[in-house]
Amino acid sequence: MKTINYSNLDQAKAFSKLETMVADKKVPTLKSLLSSERVTSCSLPAGGGLTYNFAAKQADDEILKTLYALADEQQVLDKYEELLNGERINTGENRMVLHHLTRGQCGEPVIEGDKNLGDFYAEQAERFYAFSRDIHSGKIKGSTGKNFKTVVQIGIGGSDLGPRALYLALKGWAVKSDSLKMEAEFISNVDPDDASQVISEVDPESTLFILVSKSGTTQETLTNHQLVINKMIEAGIPGLKPELHMVAVTSQTSPLASSSDFLDSFYIDDYIGGRYSATSAVGGVILSLAFGDTAFKALLSGAHEADMLALESPSKNAALTDALLGFFENNLMGQSVTAILPYSQALSRFPAHLQQLDMESNGKMVNRTGAPLSYKTGPVIMGEPGTNGQHSFYQLLHQGTSIVPLQFIGFKESQRQEDVVIEGLTSQKKLNANLTAQIAAFALGQENKNKNKFFPGERPSSLIHGKDLNPKSLGALLAHFENKVMFQGFLWNLNSFDQEGVQLGKVLTGKVLGGADDPVLKAYSELLGI
Amino acid sequence: MKTINYSNLDQAKAFSKLETMVADKKVPTLKSLLSSERVTSCSLPAGGGLTYNFAAKQADDEILKTLYALADEQQVLDKYEELLNGERINTGENRMVLHHLTRGQCGEPVIEGDKNLGDFYAEQAERFYAFSRDIHSGKIKGSTGKNFKTVVQIGIGGSDLGPRALYLALKGWAVKSDSLKMEAEFISNVDPDDASQVISEVDPESTLFILVSKSGTTQETLTNHQLVINKMIEAGIPGLKPELHMVAVTSQTSPLASSSDFLDSFYIDDYIGGRYSATSAVGGVILSLAFGDTAFKALLSGAHEADMLALESPSKNAALTDALLGFFENNLMGQSVTAILPYSQALSRFPAHLQQLDMESNGKMVNRTGAPLSYKTGPVIMGEPGTNGQHSFYQLLHQGTSIVPLQFIGFKESQRQEDVVIEGLTSQKKLNANLTAQIAAFALGQENKNKNKFFPGERPSSLIHGKDLNPKSLGALLAHFENKVMFQGFLWNLNSFDQEGVQLGKVLTGKVLGGADDPVLKAYSELLGI
Repeated sequence: MKTINYSNLDQAKAFSKLETMVADKKVPTLKSLLSSERVTSCSLPAGGGLTYNFAAKQADDEILKTLYALADEQQVLDKYEELLNGERINTGENRMVLHHLTRGQCGEPVIEGDKNLGDFYAEQAERFYAFSRDIHSGKIKGSTGKNFKTVVQIGIGGSDLGPRALYLALKGWAVKSDSLKMEAEFISNVDPDDASQVISEVDPESTLFILVSKSGTTQETLTNHQLVINKMIEAGIPGLKPELHMVAVTSQTSPLASSSDFLDSFYIDDYIGGRYSATSAVGGVILSLAFGDTAFKALLSGAHEADMLALESPSKNAALTDALLGFFENNLMGQSVTAILPYSQALSRFPAHLQQLDMESNGKMVNRTGAPLSYKTGPVIMGEPGTNGQHSFYQLLHQGTSIVPLQFIGFKESQRQEDVVIEGLTSQKKLNANLTAQIAAFALGQENKNKNKFFPGERPSSLIHGKDLNPKSLGALLAHFENKVMFQGFLWNLNSFDQEGVQLGKVLTGKVLGGADDPVLKAYSELLGI
Repeated sequence: MKTINYSNLDQAKAFSKLETMVADKKVPTLKSLLSSERVTSCSLPAGGGLTYNFAAKQADDEILKTLYALADEQQVLDKYEELLNGERINTGENRMVLHHLTRGQCGEPVIEGDKNLGDFYAEQAERFYAFSRDIHSGKIKGSTGKNFKTVVQIGIGGSDLGPRALYLALKGWAVKSDSLKMEAEFISNVDPDDASQVISEVDPESTLFILVSKSGTTQETLTNHQLVINKMIEAGIPGLKPELHMVAVTSQTSPLASSSDFLDSFYIDDYIGGRYSATSAVGGVILSLAFGDTAFKALLSGAHEADMLALESPSKNAALTDALLGFFENNLMGQSVTAILPYSQALSRFPAHLQQLDMESNGKMVNRTGAPLSYKTGPVIMGEPGTNGQHSFYQLLHQGTSIVPLQFIGFKESQRQEDVVIEGLTSQKKLNANLTAQIAAFALGQENKNKNKFFPGERPSSLIHGKDLNPKSLGALLAHFENKVMFQGFLWNLNSFDQEGVQLGKVLTGKVLGGADDPVLKAYSELLGI
């Protein structure tokens, strides 16, 4: 095994070289770069039938070569292999990082004590596959004898955003392919209005709840669990037993594990971080219930394909190339916001998931050993589906005073295949014509004597595209971004897998609820009626 | 009437003074500033029972005084009065800007030809109030004789985001106060999966559609109109006549006006910009149908209160103070992203509306006469409700390398008043304890020898708070932000009311659909199956 040198970015020769290139104005304009040849050549497979295209990125061969040299210097592929092989790469929490293992074996078997962790995740998957089949067949029914028709996930953060984004992303596919087994809903916020609204819209007798909390101590989730139980009891339905409508997804050591409050429990462990948990039981139970285990297995296979492609050498590696170009824009070009713009309504909440994935992973100011960093790290992530965004914030993206790099996502076909032809054109073609037009407009701009109608262009974008959005391509899309974020963390030499930044709020919340005598906390508490 | 001097920001003496103060490190730390006294004193009424609190903003008396002097120098209140009195302040399109007039008279009557425009908006409101009462009473029924139960808005951008955010914001209030007259859904995206999904979930016989397009030519909206009609015909229900299930909200000169394709039409005009149209018929028809005209009138009254408060002198003016502090962070402190963080699940889509409102209004690089600007303009806006965001992107907000100013929103009471007490505490108190804790954590941070657990603090925030979220407070909240954005546009001397940045995409989309021979457009078209 290679020795890996974990050093900060500012020690890397390729980084200095890039800084010099930028200072010497060696960065070509997009207007001079973008050509149809580049659209063909700047293209890498991203798994699941998807392709990553970076023709409209402000990087010529020289910049790309230097970025790839930086990847070598920072040994990002070696670090990825270390991670896959079970190195404790989450230094802050002294934990392995094993979400890749939930979708397949990319490296050596990972053994802890006498436990093969790959086998453990696979066993859990087999358990929830069998459980979902028993729910679908009616072998397991609600406590009053009704079949389960709806599933509600109670969880927050990674237990909510990823699974919710994936459910919404596949619902149209499931309707079209006759795979929609159950409707799914989600409760996350401690705001009681969230749970109240969801519960008011489901039939308690035919609803199964999934409580998701790795630690079994998440305040929001436990509170909402109790709120749901109270509501079920209040419903006053004879024979309704809440505990027979609840399963848990948690760690084996949590207070929720094998509790009699649950019909069944499925397990994850400390090596699956919340924001990386969509392909574990956290996403797997609800997605198998909603769409069947075959669909979830296809999602895993797409993710595994992307994970394997992320082992390719830098210039053949879509996730790494994406990471390097994003890094270049952030650290060299001073572009510190990234917009995620899927031209697919089904991906309406995918940007919110990526916002967590990226900002919680790389929004750090210390390196992996806790030393302060002297350079910018993770960008701010925002986004909404196109064409909606075009009628909203695109004004600033086109003509604002900051340049925001763009990540477009598009598919040849719609999911539901229910389209309308007007003047010879389907909606899907209009959608994609808009996407095409935007890439060109952002990159090339347009001159106009009236400066109010002038478009400067030089707004870089990438495009991930494929035939359609299905479980496999969605799995690859998810893993592509997970791996992109991981590679950027390696470049910055930080730990993308802990989240100490959420702790202080928790501590102070406890103080407020405990009646803190701190005058500032008391003053705000008064305003808010605490 | 005063003469108004429209000059660029960099000509203002107060701006130079602020630059000097920043250069001389005269900006106090939040740790030195924030006190319980400030929580009490830094507080201004924002209308509708709301209060704007800026205790946790990095501005002492000297900075505030200079900001207020800047407001005077840029004559922002005079400009607001000009706008109210019907000046053609939308210079790019040579239009008046009259959304304030949809909720009441703040200035002189605005007369065009022999038409009093305030009366015109009021007449339209009376028309859709009467229409909504006829729908609710069953006087107007669907074409097969069923009562209308569901209303679906077909619109995009301002015809979607504002009305949708407001509908979601009030649904819980309506359920609790027994005011939910009709369920509402929204179709916006040209992606055919959007319309297909919504239509699959409604009963065509009891559904009323509202087509919203000021020009009557919005590609997405016309396409979705046709898609809905096709679906209704395909349903094969005897006697079902789509045109008797459709109303239009449009301008009197649009091709949709008084068309036989519609049951009725309600009018707006060119002086109500899309993103400012939520209090016109664009929001009024659907909100009156969903919640009754009394609720919509209350929303207007809250907005009008905020509009009147925005006429107050700078130091008593919540919207202007908010604008000035946001400007200070953006232009003097280099903080060019703002996060909107409502601690209310009902406001789940309010940040998306503000994202459009702000970024489409002030994402400009030229001044109001089209001359290039040498300073930063509008910020990037992002946000999700708390506590959800705490388990997502707050990591970067606390410990990232960029400082993102925060706008918190919170209410003493939940909307649905269906809460649960665990260990003596309601969910609502937990929600607000989290909010309180976050303000303090962001401002004050926390020392730690372990730099991975160190919080630098110095993250500024404001808090808009009130008793509860109801139609009146929501109206004030909406108008507060509209006025904030308007004032910032005045400071920057730009036109916040046009959106030339959306045009190039439209032109190029037409070229793509027309089979453009541009090689770049062709190459991307091929990837996307056009």
